[in-house]
Amino acid sequence: MTEDRIRCPSCRDKIMTSDEAAKLIKGGMNVATSGFALAGNPKEVLPAFIRKREANWERMRINLWTGASTGYEVDGLLGEHDAVKKRFPYQSTKEMRNCINRGITWYNDMHLSLSSQSVRYGWWGDLDVAIVEAAAITEKGELVLTTGVGNTPTFVLMADKVIVEVNHTFPRELEGIHDLYSVDDPPDRDPILITRPGEKIGSPYLAVPEEKIAAVVTSDTKEKGPVFQEAKPVHEKMAHHLIGFLTDEVDAGRLPAHLLPLQSGVGNVANAVLSGLANSDFSDLHVYSEVLQDSILTLLESGKLKGASGCAVNLSDSSMERFYENLDWYKEKIVLRPLEISNHPEIIRRLGVIAMNTAIEADIYGNVNSTHLMGSNIMNGIGGSGDFARNAYLSFFFTESTAKKGDISSIVPYVSHTDHTEHDVDVIITEQGAADLRGLSPRERAIEVIEQCAHPDYKEALWDYHNRAVNETGGQTPHLLEESFSWHTRFINKGTMKQG
Amino acid sequence: MTEDRIRCPSCRDKIMTSDEAAKLIKGGMNVATSGFALAGNPKEVLPAFIRKREANWERMRINLWTGASTGYEVDGLLGEHDAVKKRFPYQSTKEMRNCINRGITWYNDMHLSLSSQSVRYGWWGDLDVAIVEAAAITEKGELVLTTGVGNTPTFVLMADKVIVEVNHTFPRELEGIHDLYSVDDPPDRDPILITRPGEKIGSPYLAVPEEKIAAVVTSDTKEKGPVFQEAKPVHEKMAHHLIGFLTDEVDAGRLPAHLLPLQSGVGNVANAVLSGLANSDFSDLHVYSEVLQDSILTLLESGKLKGASGCAVNLSDSSMERFYENLDWYKEKIVLRPLEISNHPEIIRRLGVIAMNTAIEADIYGNVNSTHLMGSNIMNGIGGSGDFARNAYLSFFFTESTAKKGDISSIVPYVSHTDHTEHDVDVIITEQGAADLRGLSPRERAIEVIEQCAHPDYKEALWDYHNRAVNETGGQTPHLLEESFSWHTRFINKGTMKQG
Repeated sequence: MTEDRIRCPSCRDKIMTSDEAAKLIKGGMNVATSGFALAGNPKEVLPAFIRKREANWERMRINLWTGASTGYEVDGLLGEHDAVKKRFPYQSTKEMRNCINRGITWYNDMHLSLSSQSVRYGWWGDLDVAIVEAAAITEKGELVLTTGVGNTPTFVLMADKVIVEVNHTFPRELEGIHDLYSVDDPPDRDPILITRPGEKIGSPYLAVPEEKIAAVVTSDTKEKGPVFQEAKPVHEKMAHHLIGFLTDEVDAGRLPAHLLPLQSGVGNVANAVLSGLANSDFSDLHVYSEVLQDSILTLLESGKLKGASGCAVNLSDSSMERFYENLDWYKEKIVLRPLEISNHPEIIRRLGVIAMNTAIEADIYGNVNSTHLMGSNIMNGIGGSGDFARNAYLSFFFTESTAKKGDISSIVPYVSHTDHTEHDVDVIITEQGAADLRGLSPRERAIEVIEQCAHPDYKEALWDYHNRAVNETGGQTPHLLEESFSWHTRFINKGTMKQG
Repeated sequence: MTEDRIRCPSCRDKIMTSDEAAKLIKGGMNVATSGFALAGNPKEVLPAFIRKREANWERMRINLWTGASTGYEVDGLLGEHDAVKKRFPYQSTKEMRNCINRGITWYNDMHLSLSSQSVRYGWWGDLDVAIVEAAAITEKGELVLTTGVGNTPTFVLMADKVIVEVNHTFPRELEGIHDLYSVDDPPDRDPILITRPGEKIGSPYLAVPEEKIAAVVTSDTKEKGPVFQEAKPVHEKMAHHLIGFLTDEVDAGRLPAHLLPLQSGVGNVANAVLSGLANSDFSDLHVYSEVLQDSILTLLESGKLKGASGCAVNLSDSSMERFYENLDWYKEKIVLRPLEISNHPEIIRRLGVIAMNTAIEADIYGNVNSTHLMGSNIMNGIGGSGDFARNAYLSFFFTESTAKKGDISSIVPYVSHTDHTEHDVDVIITEQGAADLRGLSPRERAIEVIEQCAHPDYKEALWDYHNRAVNETGGQTPHLLEESFSWHTRFINKGTMKQG
């Protein structure tokens, strides 16, 4: 069994327990892990590190670098134990979020496409240890990665030491699904010659210099996928508005009949909206995205989708079973790339991706907040949404028009944090409708956003703000700065954005 | 004379006066012009259009599309007469700004790199007339453009009719300085194979289908360049901080000794800062930028700069004279490209450009406002700053720490408009110092921005805001939303941001 998975003899000499491997991690170190979303993160060594830390009453902390969010074995556990001093470049667990918002963990929330090069440029310091999950190690000592590629190739390149966790619960047949291509740094950077979403330009394997491998740990811990909600009626309405919008664009000759490669953000809304396309008349679709969720399987099975490129497959447990059962069929249609390639501005712009991301709130002038609740507390992070929105052919943002049972309007006079500026948002979709902001001035956008997207309970108050701002202040983007955030402060103080 | 300039016989048949050509422009039309900044815009037909409009007491308006800002003959005059209904994608004259802020003209302020494709995608509607300035028309009917390329190739491609203004005041030897390359639209878009700043991949001429040319007008109106201020001591201090920063990066091995291609924004500060490099120890530099201002000549003449790529040369009158006198020498070192190429994310990221742009204000968490005064009134627009900042190797923003004789602090608790988010700003430089924000969490950034960049008169108040926000609200980005904009409202109401 081990010989099947660890085919390189010298690597077999380095097999040790997770407790032994965890000793390689010391307080203050920069530690990076494989994986992206809940897919492909190491599952043994960091829990062992925490066990050791607890057993010895130690309080040392590490700096944690990843591809994006991770599963419980990384962000959950380390967050629970206040064990992270600095965190790059994204997270989404309640434990880590809690550390960040309490000021325990310093979090640099960044465009994911920039994360690999930031490491190579040396902006995060030197990387001490990379912990990488693999499905196998080949005869040559190359790694077969698992479900999430993320920044793993760069971490392995830059780390002093690499710990490999060979996880036996992944099918060995994942071999061949990856396309690992490395980007050089300027001034010697070449064009990345991907011109079709599914095109492969790299290697299925990740080479690791033998001398870097400090430990090989075997793992039997099964990956725990996300739990997606069933699509709610509001999601179906959003999908309906999206499909209507895209249909109109095709009819107007502004989009090809089979659309352009689709990108869809992470989470329930994105998953539900993308699933909605399975019930549309569109066919021969392609996906060039970041995380491939359950909806991708649905679309592939429906025959609507010809292929999908991403940097991770992040499936619910039941979908993952389906995926593994028909892996050979899916492998012909799915390619997993490094985050730097899945989110690369050059490729997104070249392919003309249709970007679909979720917003926490949007304002009447088309600015979008993707990260913060009421201005100060972070939810997750910007992730890849900026990589896609800025470089897309068409950039959609989705949000339900209200939250907290109607006490929060997701359409506000002024977003409490700006992640995507008015310059980057083409279309906002809520269950109420779609606001097409292309080519509009802010005053025109306000009409469109309030009329198409706001919940009826908040329309009058939004109009009131906008009209008074036009009359009292005027300008390109009329605002009453004294009350721009009054909706948020009302919620903070009274528990509702509703007036009166 | 005319035969030298208009070498294509069929084009000579289309010569008419500007008054005759102006009749081709009707109210409600979409009208596009060549040029970028104060360089290369047509100088005859639109003034004739305004004369006719005035003479006939007409009030019709057009929609005006350009490369960016234009000279008085376009934005100034049309703004003065309220003659523009919609304006894309940038402006910078007081006349047009005034129309926009009064709500007379609807202005879509957008990333310039997106403007050409927005036209081709049909998002701005159909283009009726393109008015293009040329230095000559070749035997084959191709245009030799003048000093600003901007979006001209796309406008000519998409326009129903093209009016050519052949301007005799430009030296014919501009022929050969342009490199015109067209980008296809998805799904058939190819890699753009520029790997060095000065590399030429296109044609020096712009082909125009003969049947599109509706009029040829000759012009003797000399281009009026910008007037740059002498570098002030504050600018020299900023240049000093920049050079110190870059030197440290080279010493740390994070930048090559000859740096990476430089981009610099438009205006006095950018011009002064770039000029500062002429007095540094750096050599063998390259520029890959948008507008080439006087500082480029200074740097080329100093021998520090090997070559410069842009989409316009926008020089003061005296520098322009110098430029024309030594045109052959400069032509070996300067290439003018379409805006879509000069600002293309693919190339900026590939080359690893060092981006240097100016801010109106920045906040303690690193968000930058480049466009609005006190939240509502627009100044110019985002221009290409987002194209460069987002895709750069390193992204700098410059601003003096105060404005209005000290009554405005350019470092505020919360920017009154966000054009560049915390995710896009690496370094902020004022005359006080440089704040290096790479890899920092917002709380860490606040320390850096306040300590390095804020004016001493405002430091205490910024610390007070930040410390109270940390204690009372906490979170990733601590804010007191009730008073986030109190600095701006104090200025609006009392004429100063100073407290007490």
